[in-house]
Amino acid sequence: MRFFSDNAAPVAPAIMAAIEQANAADTAYDGDTLSGHLDVAFSTLFEREVAVLWVSTGTAANALALSLLCPPYGGVLCHEAAHIVGDECGAPEFYTHGARLMGCTGEGGKLDVDTLAARLAGVRPDVHQVQPHTVSLTNATESGLSYRPSEIAAIGAFCRENGLAIHMDGARFANAVAFTGASPAEMSWRGSVDFLSFGFTKNGAMNAEALVLFDPALVEEARRRRKRGGHLLSKGRFIAAQLLAMLEGDRWLVNARAANCAAQKVAAGAGDRLLYPVEANEVFLRLSPEEAGRLRAAGYDFYDWGEGVARLVTSWHHDEADVAPFAHAIAAL
Amino acid sequence: MRFFSDNAAPVAPAIMAAIEQANAADTAYDGDTLSGHLDVAFSTLFEREVAVLWVSTGTAANALALSLLCPPYGGVLCHEAAHIVGDECGAPEFYTHGARLMGCTGEGGKLDVDTLAARLAGVRPDVHQVQPHTVSLTNATESGLSYRPSEIAAIGAFCRENGLAIHMDGARFANAVAFTGASPAEMSWRGSVDFLSFGFTKNGAMNAEALVLFDPALVEEARRRRKRGGHLLSKGRFIAAQLLAMLEGDRWLVNARAANCAAQKVAAGAGDRLLYPVEANEVFLRLSPEEAGRLRAAGYDFYDWGEGVARLVTSWHHDEADVAPFAHAIAAL
Amino acid sequence: MRFFSDNAAPVAPAIMAAIEQANAADTAYDGDTLSGHLDVAFSTLFEREVAVLWVSTGTAANALALSLLCPPYGGVLCHEAAHIVGDECGAPEFYTHGARLMGCTGEGGKLDVDTLAARLAGVRPDVHQVQPHTVSLTNATESGLSYRPSEIAAIGAFCRENGLAIHMDGARFANAVAFTGASPAEMSWRGSVDFLSFGFTKNGAMNAEALVLFDPALVEEARRRRKRGGHLLSKGRFIAAQLLAMLEGDRWLVNARAANCAAQKVAAGAGDRLLYPVEANEVFLRLSPEEAGRLRAAGYDFYDWGEGVARLVTSWHHDEADVAPFAHAIAAL
Amino acid sequence: MRFFSDNAAPVAPAIMAAIEQANAADTAYDGDTLSGHLDVAFSTLFEREVAVLWVSTGTAANALALSLLCPPYGGVLCHEAAHIVGDECGAPEFYTHGARLMGCTGEGGKLDVDTLAARLAGVRPDVHQVQPHTVSLTNATESGLSYRPSEIAAIGAFCRENGLAIHMDGARFANAVAFTGASPAEMSWRGSVDFLSFGFTKNGAMNAEALVLFDPALVEEARRRRKRGGHLLSKGRFIAAQLLAMLEGDRWLVNARAANCAAQKVAAGAGDRLLYPVEANEVFLRLSPEEAGRLRAAGYDFYDWGEGVARLVTSWHHDEADVAPFAHAIAAL
Repeated sequence: MRFFSDNAAPVAPAIMAAIEQANAADTAYDGDTLSGHLDVAFSTLFEREVAVLWVSTGTAANALALSLLCPPYGGVLCHEAAHIVGDECGAPEFYTHGARLMGCTGEGGKLDVDTLAARLAGVRPDVHQVQPHTVSLTNATESGLSYRPSEIAAIGAFCRENGLAIHMDGARFANAVAFTGASPAEMSWRGSVDFLSFGFTKNGAMNAEALVLFDPALVEEARRRRKRGGHLLSKGRFIAAQLLAMLEGDRWLVNARAANCAAQKVAAGAGDRLLYPVEANEVFLRLSPEEAGRLRAAGYDFYDWGEGVARLVTSWHHDEADVAPFAHAIAAL
Repeated sequence: MRFFSDNAAPVAPAIMAAIEQANAADTAYDGDTLSGHLDVAFSTLFEREVAVLWVSTGTAANALALSLLCPPYGGVLCHEAAHIVGDECGAPEFYTHGARLMGCTGEGGKLDVDTLAARLAGVRPDVHQVQPHTVSLTNATESGLSYRPSEIAAIGAFCRENGLAIHMDGARFANAVAFTGASPAEMSWRGSVDFLSFGFTKNGAMNAEALVLFDPALVEEARRRRKRGGHLLSKGRFIAAQLLAMLEGDRWLVNARAANCAAQKVAAGAGDRLLYPVEANEVFLRLSPEEAGRLRAAGYDFYDWGEGVARLVTSWHHDEADVAPFAHAIAAL
Repeated sequence: MRFFSDNAAPVAPAIMAAIEQANAADTAYDGDTLSGHLDVAFSTLFEREVAVLWVSTGTAANALALSLLCPPYGGVLCHEAAHIVGDECGAPEFYTHGARLMGCTGEGGKLDVDTLAARLAGVRPDVHQVQPHTVSLTNATESGLSYRPSEIAAIGAFCRENGLAIHMDGARFANAVAFTGASPAEMSWRGSVDFLSFGFTKNGAMNAEALVLFDPALVEEARRRRKRGGHLLSKGRFIAAQLLAMLEGDRWLVNARAANCAAQKVAAGAGDRLLYPVEANEVFLRLSPEEAGRLRAAGYDFYDWGEGVARLVTSWHHDEADVAPFAHAIAAL
Repeated sequence: MRFFSDNAAPVAPAIMAAIEQANAADTAYDGDTLSGHLDVAFSTLFEREVAVLWVSTGTAANALALSLLCPPYGGVLCHEAAHIVGDECGAPEFYTHGARLMGCTGEGGKLDVDTLAARLAGVRPDVHQVQPHTVSLTNATESGLSYRPSEIAAIGAFCRENGLAIHMDGARFANAVAFTGASPAEMSWRGSVDFLSFGFTKNGAMNAEALVLFDPALVEEARRRRKRGGHLLSKGRFIAAQLLAMLEGDRWLVNARAANCAAQKVAAGAGDRLLYPVEANEVFLRLSPEEAGRLRAAGYDFYDWGEGVARLVTSWHHDEADVAPFAHAIAAL
């Protein structure tokens, strides 16, 4: 049983069906009917006008967003454990043409106003130092914690006061929404988020992510940067189809709830082993190498996350039959 | 009937089937079994060891290739009408970090040794001028002409003598191979091509292109640059599946032959209207605006290609029933 | 006698004296008193508020200007023979992060509205093509011609209508002002020029160029880009001193007039050999290799400028005694 | 009295004299006789063949060096307090096209093998993480400490084993050499340093730094990158003249000794206030705001260096008359 990544899960049947249904000749790039429906569909979901660009990877969505929010000579305040720092091989630096990721610390991958204020205070405003232009939040975080709307709003207010834009890496935005019960609007633009990388691939899509622009005026620049990055697929209808199918009947939320639920069940028997509260679809367990070995011998696959810690990731695809024995095995260690 | 782009055609049934069959949980990124088979499959096809990276767009394949062959302070000799010049929104400059595209002229989008030699002779070798480091050929060209192996070999010899690498933009490589009857090897590395962007999306795939490295030593750098460009899909197995299905039973060649054949039939009644010989799946016709209007009124869709010229593109999907009436309509103008 | 470049001339005595006088301890970078006087001094000269940044090379001034006027995904309309195209080793692409130089043709290195309009009309506004964002004029041109105020104003009006900014490479701006007799204002912002690279090094300074911003709002970004490019000298007072000494008593104009006058004298006996009218400090002569050889044998040094053409450049330092025998030698060929 | 930066000191008389003597017409750029002597002069000093490029700022020297040693997708291990991190406005990222500065900690700005090994061990070698390609040492450090030859050699051996190149930021290399008494060779290439930014501007020059390449094979690329950065001055002879004058009679060492000696004297009465041993020309003192205010009121100028710490910098120009009263004033606090 694979618990090492939600990327390893299959594509959900409804998404695969939508892909197949998209297979008729249509205009190339993003001129097709499906792509043309995205703005309306996401505007409905977010309860305001938004512009949406599909891309095929979360790294592309993040890097494009940052390139629109931060000049080459600027900096991005982010958690030092963020995906953009540790898992994108410098894509943010590439797309921004050299902006600097300015890592901050914070329990469980979370930033707060105090942390940001302290980091900002440490930067001399003179021409010799790289100045932060934007903040990047990850929700849910790399440690599986979810920002609440009030936390986002507090950071948002701080950023507005200090002239900082906000990007949200929402590779697991759906899981955070599912956990908090807040609306997508509360979890994003109502808290002053400017750009959201809204991930679907980990949540049952094949290769579809939405870059959501709450400032639609930037969409022309975003479209050019996407093309320039090689991310304007010639048969974009297959990506748009996935996104629309995900929004239909709130499948994105249904899937995320299933994944979160599986995580809760996996964690149920973990007791003191839990490193963080489970607020999305990731479980971090203190496991000795010997214990990790025993679980692997029993057929469970997962990542080591530093010394003595294992990361277990659940997906929309894990059902009771997958999860119950695993929870049992953990409890039995 | 759509003749405006091979990108507008549907995905071929065998490719769609392969995508569906790939839908089992597997390792993320390019660690899956299907991705792992690519090097062997393409090495067989090219009759030598090659390293292959999948990407989702031809623009990404081209730009990555150039980034590996040309330093930021160098130049790329190419045809002024090449896709990398006119249709990629500066992706080559982005990925190479500012290398210069040095456009050359040549009938029908083709370069030859004389043209390259003259362009090279016009560059002072001093530190003030951008020095060419690589040549980019498009095969088949933007005008639907195919380089023959002897032409490639001649350019290849010139490049070797002058320290220039060679990239081939093969968005329609399959069509060129189908037309010339030469082997993929003769059309690439035997003529000193270093990197080939081997396109499959226009030829019946969904979003799959192969970046073929004839110098496998560069594969590690290529993999990092791909990741950094946001082109390492987390469920890469769906891209690899398309490529493997394309190679199986030489479907890439079967499809390209079908597209080429359709182009020949479309062109059959065109007579003097033909701007170029038809050597791939594109037909360029002299059409007055009034004539173009009549064809469009009859339901045929195509691009204007400058003044008084129309570009008609056929695909694997055009059959006799599509093409015959169109040829008839053209002949009847 | 050296006529191959105005860069080869010595530093003018008043400039050297100003450098020596600047040699007292003072604040580092551009916080010193001399640097602090620049905005006022240049504002007076240009009859409006301007912001000025010193840099040490014309290439840096040009590239910084373009980086402020053109995004990485944009293009710069310029003459194909412009210094930014042929003599800066890709600095514009480096500083703009990959914007494209879109070369136009035009007699004697000059652009006009028709040329620009035609080039612009050839660009599809879609996302696939690089869109021009700015125009770069060189005044005096690489062929030694000077734009008149009316010509600049016509281009300026066209650019305003089409949303294009204007950069002027004024490595020999002084010579153009001296030739036309127009005011610096007429030769720049009154004709809608946004940024001027105002050169002094060729005109008797040691290593001092002024980047003049007619939109002072951009000065903060300009300062950061200058620092980031490594062009913020720690002892900037020595550069500022040169610029102030150049403005004092209009030495820049006096020197340019001397250079222009020398060019007129050199050209006086050239008759039909003249390729272009002499409108600055450069003379282009038709010379056979044999004739060029004879002049060189007589001790005159100059560049070949393509086949059968020689470029002779005069400087502030050439006096009657230098120039008369040369004019004689040319006339005697 | 200015103790806030060695950049604030005047140009040494011998350097000013050399500049004046260079003021004859000569070939432009770096084709002049003086520039042509640099390789030999520095090869003698370093006891091996080196290639040397002049530039006008230390930031340019550092950024160019890093661009030659680290690819855009790579990382630079350096101290988190290094000048390249905190004082160059992102120039390293600009010149490397987005390589990442990977800050390490270490007492007094120094790195050692243990620190580097631990940082390296924390990087997964997979394609998702930025891989370090080079180490940048600052000697003397930002805290005024000097690496000894044995320390450099130990780091050098570690780097060789791990495929890392070494850049040394030697803005105060002269001061480190003066302090340790080691030879320039021992302080650089004998310890495996690949590129040295050898600073002269802080040490009595006007605007002259030497980028020393211990691998002369890279000089062509370095020259192109320098030009592309806008750092090839058209009258380079004035920079070369400064460097040659600095080497003549080991003036660089004489000046550095004078500055170091002044620092020792300033520190003499500081007792427990000293934050670091004084190993170059910088003195870091614990001073309360009130004490700092008293010194400033007495006419002494210096930087606050974080809370409760003052940085005092001496230069070649500080003599007994400057320094003795200051030492006295500090002792009297």
